[in-house]
Amino acid sequence: AILQSINAHSSPGILQGKKILITAGPTRERLDPVRYITNRSSGKMGYALAEQAQKLGALVTLVSGPVTLSAPEYVNTVLVESAADMYDAVMKHIAGQDIMIAAAAVADYTPVHVQEEKIKKQNEQTELHLHKTKDIVASIARLKNKPFTIGFAAETQHLEQYALDKLQRKKLDMIAANWVGQVEGGFDSAVNALQVYWKNGQKTFTMTDKTRLASQLLVLIAERLDA
Amino acid sequence: AILQSINAHSSPGILQGKKILITAGPTRERLDPVRYITNRSSGKMGYALAEQAQKLGALVTLVSGPVTLSAPEYVNTVLVESAADMYDAVMKHIAGQDIMIAAAAVADYTPVHVQEEKIKKQNEQTELHLHKTKDIVASIARLKNKPFTIGFAAETQHLEQYALDKLQRKKLDMIAANWVGQVEGGFDSAVNALQVYWKNGQKTFTMTDKTRLASQLLVLIAERLDA
Repeated sequence: AILQSINAHSSPGILQGKKILITAGPTRERLDPVRYITNRSSGKMGYALAEQAQKLGALVTLVSGPVTLSAPEYVNTVLVESAADMYDAVMKHIAGQDIMIAAAAVADYTPVHVQEEKIKKQNEQTELHLHKTKDIVASIARLKNKPFTIGFAAETQHLEQYALDKLQRKKLDMIAANWVGQVEGGFDSAVNALQVYWKNGQKTFTMTDKTRLASQLLVLIAERLDA
Repeated sequence: AILQSINAHSSPGILQGKKILITAGPTRERLDPVRYITNRSSGKMGYALAEQAQKLGALVTLVSGPVTLSAPEYVNTVLVESAADMYDAVMKHIAGQDIMIAAAAVADYTPVHVQEEKIKKQNEQTELHLHKTKDIVASIARLKNKPFTIGFAAETQHLEQYALDKLQRKKLDMIAANWVGQVEGGFDSAVNALQVYWKNGQKTFTMTDKTRLASQLLVLIAERLDA
């Protein structure tokens, strides 16, 4: 009964009327018309957050990279491809948002040149020149009227250290950290565990399905928003 | 009626007892535990070829990169990730095959170093060092007891020139060429058109769904096999 108390079904309306922008999925950084760099993000966590936030009464905008999931009902879903597309879509929709949850796995680097025609195989070795993409969540956290901003950190090592560094460096209000590349949980999985940090606080959510985990995280966000 | 005569349903058994190895889908070339280079191949053409070949009486082995399609019934499906994995799986299963159809979009290049931990964002610019992967279809066509070997060419320009060059250079028995990056057809699509070339011959299959196109191509292969 105690565990069941922290889910969307039993917490109706705790985000009533709040405007939430959520990013989800991977991005695709094109090399040419057919090839691209991407990552293992399935979008499941971001989509679960969008669905559960809507059930908790929020007005949800979901900016999603290419995934195989269906757009959630009653959610304004905006489909994008690259990190640059996602940056533009987020900036276009950020005004008036109360909360921003950056659950997408945005590419850190993108090719300097996109070839207009398919690259032909030639040399034995080749080099790909990449440059940094714009940091979406950090850009949001720097805005004058910034929303309550939550980032994600998916790490293969030094989880707490990297998450706390990201929280402070990007001036986030909260960061949700999870292991990737482990046996259970992470990108390809229906389940996950989260270690959540904010200024002077932290909370652990143990391994559970992403729908339930999304509810738990949203309840925590609603608490911290009023704190 | 004439058009309907060239499909799998009305040509039962034309590949009866033939052993066919088909590759399908993209490959994923890892940069680190979460990031990779891939391409827009959906695997639909290769999976349609596997299904239709099985219906035409063939014993089918399908070596597939990561796709969202279900393994076809009565087909020996081998799932792989990288170009190197696909090469190994094809070599393991090639002995005794009568026909090899290389429908996969195999990466031409793969990272020289795969990072064991997730790469951290640092410099403004970075370089990715890549080297050539092994050419699977050319390796098969060089075998002493080589099967009847069909390659694919997906091009954004110079379709005929690139296809004929590939046919000769890789010593293929046949090549099926198609445009990609057009409005209709190609990687992401349920439909496609093919321009097929072999020594002293060619045939055009106009835009149709990939299941039907697979039957048409297999009927042509069966004819050329006996020629």
